Amino acid sequence: MGEGGLLRELDERFLRRALQLAERARGHTHPNPLVGAVLVREGRIVGEGYHPRAGEAHAEVYALRQAGEEAQGATLYVSLEPCNHFGRTPPCSLALLQAGVARVVAAARDPNLLAQGGLERLRAGGVEVEAGLLEAEAQRQNEVFFHVQKKGRPFVLLKAALTLDGKVAAVSGDARYVSSEESRRVAQAYRQWLPVVMVGVGTVLKDDPWLTVREPDFRPFPLMLEPPPLRDPVKVVLDTEGRTPPTARIFQKGPRGEPARVYVLVGKGAPKDRLRALEEAGARVVELPREGGRVSLEGALHLLLEEGLDGILLEGGPRLAGAFWERGLVDKLALFVAPKVLGEGRGFLEGFALERMAEARRLRLVRREWLGEDLWLEAYPEG
Amino acid sequence: MGEGGLLRELDERFLRRALQLAERARGHTHPNPLVGAVLVREGRIVGEGYHPRAGEAHAEVYALRQAGEEAQGATLYVSLEPCNHFGRTPPCSLALLQAGVARVVAAARDPNLLAQGGLERLRAGGVEVEAGLLEAEAQRQNEVFFHVQKKGRPFVLLKAALTLDGKVAAVSGDARYVSSEESRRVAQAYRQWLPVVMVGVGTVLKDDPWLTVREPDFRPFPLMLEPPPLRDPVKVVLDTEGRTPPTARIFQKGPRGEPARVYVLVGKGAPKDRLRALEEAGARVVELPREGGRVSLEGALHLLLEEGLDGILLEGGPRLAGAFWERGLVDKLALFVAPKVLGEGRGFLEGFALERMAEARRLRLVRREWLGEDLWLEAYPEG
Repeated sequence: MGEGGLLRELDERFLRRALQLAERARGHTHPNPLVGAVLVREGRIVGEGYHPRAGEAHAEVYALRQAGEEAQGATLYVSLEPCNHFGRTPPCSLALLQAGVARVVAAARDPNLLAQGGLERLRAGGVEVEAGLLEAEAQRQNEVFFHVQKKGRPFVLLKAALTLDGKVAAVSGDARYVSSEESRRVAQAYRQWLPVVMVGVGTVLKDDPWLTVREPDFRPFPLMLEPPPLRDPVKVVLDTEGRTPPTARIFQKGPRGEPARVYVLVGKGAPKDRLRALEEAGARVVELPREGGRVSLEGALHLLLEEGLDGILLEGGPRLAGAFWERGLVDKLALFVAPKVLGEGRGFLEGFALERMAEARRLRLVRREWLGEDLWLEAYPEG
Repeated sequence: MGEGGLLRELDERFLRRALQLAERARGHTHPNPLVGAVLVREGRIVGEGYHPRAGEAHAEVYALRQAGEEAQGATLYVSLEPCNHFGRTPPCSLALLQAGVARVVAAARDPNLLAQGGLERLRAGGVEVEAGLLEAEAQRQNEVFFHVQKKGRPFVLLKAALTLDGKVAAVSGDARYVSSEESRRVAQAYRQWLPVVMVGVGTVLKDDPWLTVREPDFRPFPLMLEPPPLRDPVKVVLDTEGRTPPTARIFQKGPRGEPARVYVLVGKGAPKDRLRALEEAGARVVELPREGGRVSLEGALHLLLEEGLDGILLEGGPRLAGAFWERGLVDKLALFVAPKVLGEGRGFLEGFALERMAEARRLRLVRREWLGEDLWLEAYPEG
């Protein structure tokens, strides 16, 4: 390996460390992206940081603080281009120039037009600047953030536990349990990584779920060292006729005493008395246009984005999942496939059928891991 | 590791070699089991053999021939207890005694009462005898053989290609193709390892399959070195009303010119003219009792066992698979799961539904291998 190769390897190693640091705050920086930063001088890490939550300092600032005077002449490795605008904090580009940082290696460019320009400002200030190394990984780390910037709608992750023959429940609706205890623990942890968990009213009526994060300290990702405390997601129920019972568990306080935040999205013309009762139970009730007999999904997504809720964990049931899927509104899948066979039952996606097998949507699998006997998959729909 | 441990390790190594040799004849020894044998003298292999096909010599005989006088004082490693009866060949126990073999290490005891007693005869003759090392592997190698001895009915392996949401075809019946070319190649190879491939008449009418082994030299198992030439399975159609077209491809010669062997199993009272036409096309037509409107599955299995056809590859469709499954007649599964999602369509197992998820039948996965993006599973139903 030439000297260039060795240097590139070092760059990658420190940049990976920055990605790793960023990961510590997963689920807590919303609406900001995860960012991690490492300052290196003469091959030695002199400062590290990550953005812990919105309103607090950016990753670069923590790294600069830790490095102090050693930032002078150092290289900054950062998972996302340093910002260039006065938001809740002053621009990082300025702070880096003032500290005398000599070189900046950023993984991803900032897709946010307001924040962009950090690299240009640094270059103009005489700093050596690079971007694009490990960019795919960095974009994946903030996939909700990048998705929203690119598509202008919330990111939807559909989560389900299936039997090997693709069933999520028996014909009776009974689904206790499809997957193993271990799988269910991992599955529940997704709720802390996205701002919203969404279900159809059928799920509320059938299971009366809490939709909270109960598992005290489960971190399936080795990268997540000392993460911030758990938080519950905002709960959203799609409920065309306002049938959610005001006594449902979703309105109760979370396991850490957090007040529940619940949206009930109803169709125009849903009975007023029900809506009032739901508001009294603490729900934010929003009337949305109907489409094909149910609340418009596009309308629901648009509303949530306006509310700053840009990442949605969709937990079913089969008809709601099928409606999202059919409209191309599922951006990612998290599936837990249990080694059992049910026979006829409730399918993973219901309510639409294709004429030919060749029309089945292919998935790009990005995680295929065995949790004991269950298979844990993450995948993106292709095309 | 003590001396005992080292010796045990050597025993295992040579016994594994015997299992490996046995594997060379997979699909060709029917109705006999696969057997491999290794003769070792002073730590060196002096003779090897496997049973190539029914009517030819047993594995031990090949090993003895190769070893010649060096068999004197040697240890025989054999995957199945040496036989003790005069069948088509003289008993191996006798041949081993005559050759002066000093020790015999057998993996599995012979479940066949007629053939049993080989080890006792050898022990009585002064040979040191052991059995049971690697027994589970040896039983699995001949799972059809052991199953038939134990259960008294044919072994049924259900094979299918599924989407990730458990569909084998679109609502139209179109199933081209669920899985990748590589998966389909592996899937077809199963046909040469079991004496029978079975389908419902619906599959014949819809797909007009050949049900032959077309792939010239596909051997997915590294153990299968220089195997015997390919052969086509006996084809069995479950066809209650005798609707199989006499012009169907299943009646044509195989890709290597072999005449097709076809059974059409019909229900009592099926139209005589159809049955005559099928017989003229070359089918063996058998009338069986009806049960719930279709040919009795137990009746079909019983007939096939009487015909010496004890291993069945069941290739569908969904209702036939569901009927076998519901009756507990599926002994093993081979599944190819493709990373795609269809929505509603034809399920893997149709025609029965369970009330509760807890009743879903668990599987014990014994193969979980990725073929590119497809998942290749082999599993036994539990309980």
